[in-house]
Amino acid sequence: MVEQDNNPPAVKRLAVIGVGLIGGSLARALRAIGQVGEVVGCGRNVAHLQRGMDLGVIDTFATDPVEAVAGADMVLVAVPLSAMRQVFAAIEPGLGPDTVISDVGSAKVSVIEDARAVLGSALDRFVPGHPIAGTEKSGVEASFPDLYRGRRVILTPMAETRPEALQLVRRVWRLAGAEVTDMAPEHHDEVLAATSHLPHVLAYGLVDTLSRWSDRDEIFQYAAGGFRDFTRIASSDPAMWRDICLANHDAVVVALERYSAALATLTDAVRERDGDQLIACFSNARDARQRFLDMLER
Amino acid sequence: MVEQDNNPPAVKRLAVIGVGLIGGSLARALRAIGQVGEVVGCGRNVAHLQRGMDLGVIDTFATDPVEAVAGADMVLVAVPLSAMRQVFAAIEPGLGPDTVISDVGSAKVSVIEDARAVLGSALDRFVPGHPIAGTEKSGVEASFPDLYRGRRVILTPMAETRPEALQLVRRVWRLAGAEVTDMAPEHHDEVLAATSHLPHVLAYGLVDTLSRWSDRDEIFQYAAGGFRDFTRIASSDPAMWRDICLANHDAVVVALERYSAALATLTDAVRERDGDQLIACFSNARDARQRFLDMLER
Repeated sequence: MVEQDNNPPAVKRLAVIGVGLIGGSLARALRAIGQVGEVVGCGRNVAHLQRGMDLGVIDTFATDPVEAVAGADMVLVAVPLSAMRQVFAAIEPGLGPDTVISDVGSAKVSVIEDARAVLGSALDRFVPGHPIAGTEKSGVEASFPDLYRGRRVILTPMAETRPEALQLVRRVWRLAGAEVTDMAPEHHDEVLAATSHLPHVLAYGLVDTLSRWSDRDEIFQYAAGGFRDFTRIASSDPAMWRDICLANHDAVVVALERYSAALATLTDAVRERDGDQLIACFSNARDARQRFLDMLER
Repeated sequence: MVEQDNNPPAVKRLAVIGVGLIGGSLARALRAIGQVGEVVGCGRNVAHLQRGMDLGVIDTFATDPVEAVAGADMVLVAVPLSAMRQVFAAIEPGLGPDTVISDVGSAKVSVIEDARAVLGSALDRFVPGHPIAGTEKSGVEASFPDLYRGRRVILTPMAETRPEALQLVRRVWRLAGAEVTDMAPEHHDEVLAATSHLPHVLAYGLVDTLSRWSDRDEIFQYAAGGFRDFTRIASSDPAMWRDICLANHDAVVVALERYSAALATLTDAVRERDGDQLIACFSNARDARQRFLDMLER
């Protein structure tokens, strides 16, 4: 279906709670193609919201969540996982009977628990979502309309999620250029624990460990390019990753336990100078990574 | 001291055993500034050596190690760690009384053991070395004269190493643009285990583990950019890394054990939802990495 210019926009009034890289980029994407009528920003910091207006990311703003969501047909909650429940509770009184709510949290089971606890009758219009996108930068200044182009967005609808709510959120992300998939919330959390949460914990753990060795200055001094790549994700926001580990603790613990067991086997192989086992592991890893890259290119 | 054009080159005749990225790039660097008279390549594959000649990396070649090192004032052994001893033994009969020998192995204690075992009276002219440089590519085709510019080269001289041998090798690497440091061999192996060998094993282990999970295709499908960076080093040559783990097994085992202990603590923190401990670790890691990057820039 071709979107006609004279059709109404996908979202007439979009409220973005938390106007940063993630929320700001979705607003910009929809504005760029005329698929949003008005964008209302909401946050605690007025100077920050004013900056979002100056940048043309939002049209107006409110610091009161009830005021911000009034008359919105869609509310995007783009706040840290640790603030989800509180924000859901704060917007709930202002939600209209057809307002669709979605979020962008990196863990989904915990967000659904938060929503169930406080969204009341609006729960059937809540569509849990997770755009797998981001940059090393954060904040509304870093937002740009193409952030989601070609990226994946996972939606994890619940049994009670209304089909038309799911449909709207799916449409909005597709309009922003994303490839949208549905997944069970528990499965999302397991997959992301393996592919994103585990590597972050490993990288933080490595740099933290090395920084406590007695010869740490020398260690860092002789680190080559591979180390820099390997530890790039250890530059991510500590508070955000603490929140993710707490929110998704069960799946993260399982991933860490599996990895630790594999590492113990690998350590034994080095200790016993078992070259065959080492090369089997290393070769399998190299080949799997190559298959993964080939798959991403297709 | 400014090098005059009419001065003799630093090395009149350089024999490179193993003409790949590492050996080829040093030859190219010295040639580019007229600091080598003649470069003799040595290897088992004639087509490969011919390619090195065609590319202008070497002037001539021999497949017989004794022939290759005849008349050389410096021999650079740039072969896998697992081939070191055999190559040292093969060149030994051809070494002149003043020929300086150096290597480029990523572990130094084991190379020194190899040299001690077979280099005989030439041992006092052996200067163990390790240029911390490389690219994802390998082979003589990938070699280029600026590979070592601004990179670090660690030399680990032994008690019996002649000062003039050390001086020549140091000068050669400096002429190639590298920053040269001396270090005790055991200390080199510990530092490199922490900063290079450990991260490689961790990355291989992660990709290998994930590739064995039941939902591996989905896992890789939803992997974001951070994962790609994090696992880049798992694309390195498996045989080379097996050799490094075997050659430096003591230091690698110590590094793996320390890391595993830290990971167990971190896993407990996630299990017990200890947010304070998590953010302390993550913040320390982020800050340490930033200090490291700042240090590298200075």
